[in-house]
Amino acid sequence: MIETLGRGTGDPTAMIRDAFVRRCRREGDRFDELIRHALAGPGKLVRPLALIASAEAVGGSVDSALPAAIAVEYLHVASLVHDDIIDGDDVRRGRPSVHARYGTADAIVTGDALLFDLFVIVAEGGLPADVVAPVVAEIARAGNDLCRGQVLESGLKHDSALEDYLEVAGLKTAALFRAACRAGALLDGGSAEQVDLLGSYGEHTGIAFQMYDDCLPYLADSSRVGKPAVSDAANLRPTWPVLLAYRDGEPKHRRLIETALSGALPPEETLRSLRVAVLASGGLGSACRSAREHAGRARARLRELPVAAAATRLAGITDRAVDRDR
Amino acid sequence: MIETLGRGTGDPTAMIRDAFVRRCRREGDRFDELIRHALAGPGKLVRPLALIASAEAVGGSVDSALPAAIAVEYLHVASLVHDDIIDGDDVRRGRPSVHARYGTADAIVTGDALLFDLFVIVAEGGLPADVVAPVVAEIARAGNDLCRGQVLESGLKHDSALEDYLEVAGLKTAALFRAACRAGALLDGGSAEQVDLLGSYGEHTGIAFQMYDDCLPYLADSSRVGKPAVSDAANLRPTWPVLLAYRDGEPKHRRLIETALSGALPPEETLRSLRVAVLASGGLGSACRSAREHAGRARARLRELPVAAAATRLAGITDRAVDRDR
Repeated sequence: MIETLGRGTGDPTAMIRDAFVRRCRREGDRFDELIRHALAGPGKLVRPLALIASAEAVGGSVDSALPAAIAVEYLHVASLVHDDIIDGDDVRRGRPSVHARYGTADAIVTGDALLFDLFVIVAEGGLPADVVAPVVAEIARAGNDLCRGQVLESGLKHDSALEDYLEVAGLKTAALFRAACRAGALLDGGSAEQVDLLGSYGEHTGIAFQMYDDCLPYLADSSRVGKPAVSDAANLRPTWPVLLAYRDGEPKHRRLIETALSGALPPEETLRSLRVAVLASGGLGSACRSAREHAGRARARLRELPVAAAATRLAGITDRAVDRDR
Repeated sequence: MIETLGRGTGDPTAMIRDAFVRRCRREGDRFDELIRHALAGPGKLVRPLALIASAEAVGGSVDSALPAAIAVEYLHVASLVHDDIIDGDDVRRGRPSVHARYGTADAIVTGDALLFDLFVIVAEGGLPADVVAPVVAEIARAGNDLCRGQVLESGLKHDSALEDYLEVAGLKTAALFRAACRAGALLDGGSAEQVDLLGSYGEHTGIAFQMYDDCLPYLADSSRVGKPAVSDAANLRPTWPVLLAYRDGEPKHRRLIETALSGALPPEETLRSLRVAVLASGGLGSACRSAREHAGRARARLRELPVAAAATRLAGITDRAVDRDR
């Protein structure tokens, strides 16, 4: 099965995309069409590339890491398909989201199908028998954490403690980065210490990624503010710069945030009020700084890895996590 | 982890239920409350009991089969949680369905969490390393088949070929029965022949189960017709006796079915029309007969198994699949 998944070209990004195409190519088959639609589009592939680089950083190969890499991207895409239903987001990566194009019923089933298939891919990936259970456990636990994070996130308020945000970000975002890097290290027999180092690298990169994600809507000029920004605002979700603005801002900034997240305003107006508050209070600056701090902690974990070229690639992934426009 | 899952009482049903309670017992934790709600209620536990009996039929033990047994029930429950959203069913096992009680967003996440957790349970279940990959693959492939079956099912019409129904039932229902029995046989080193025999037993039992499930609304007296019956009718789904009634009935029965499944009538009226058609046409009788035929084929697979007591229990599971009132 995995033998047919575009191996041997050497470029991990191309190999991952090729594998996506090969896995759902029955033309005229509605089920495959759903999966194709979900997997298409210019995703950044951060998690699978981190997994592959983690494997290489401890001496492993792209080929043996490919099935698990595809699996973590499937997990991420499945969560996006279900998130878009939950958040009512009709656009994803510039195209109609699965539920917008095919309806909620098929979108629920599409996400489920990707979740099951990722475990088929891992189980049939030709891994050494003794790493299958730990790799499945890493990925499945991260998926469960992601779900727990989503449930906790709905309890966040504008005056929530920063620790509560960090717990949600840890579960919702960092858990899968962490699992991807740990799984990569496990695949080719990385030592327990290397697995933990790379897990910690992934955890900090994931936190940095989420914090910076929360900053993005306020960093871009307003013409480039895309769907995710409006989505968080429309769903009245207090994000990292908003929480910092509420903690550090003046009473007028706090009032702006309270009104914006009360649900009384239309989404664009909510976003505009929050923008004023996070910029004027210094919350946005603090949020970007703490994202970069976590990125620095992530990079610090990379010093002792045996394969320097792969460690450099991991550092690049972390750099881009806190310096991007989408 | 699995050590804490109620082992040692000897009664598989009690052990499975005990494991459910232990796995989500944090009081005051919303996430655990969601999982508890989904898992509670008097489910029949057919799939996990078939898995355990399959393991025992080839010489295995309840204890070593328990994690995989819990996993297949988690899969079934997750699919019910998501199905209830899709079908708009507000009642499940006499209680509010997860989405009716907690909303669609949390219900989507609850189903996802169960799907991930089932693979955690298998991976951490202490299985011999060489059976983890095949057991994960069996269960994950069945989950993927289930999704494919749901997508195909929405294409069934009152005049669909019976083969199309059989394909849907094979994917939507029989695949998980089959996987449960194969996984049970794999766990304790059943031979390839035993795995295939038990897989074929599971497949026929699953088909029989689905066919009889489709007959149930028309067998019970109308005061006992419950949610599933109205749900299929409300969702204008052509079930096994309806397809047979359309194939074998007189023109007036066909017209009744066409009108009922056109969506022009309220759900109770739809069900009433279908009832007249399946009873008067003989479709219901044919449907029950073919369910029993598949049950007979399932039982025929049990003759060569080494542990007769377990084979007898499997035969009992099949008998109940085609003789029950819910």
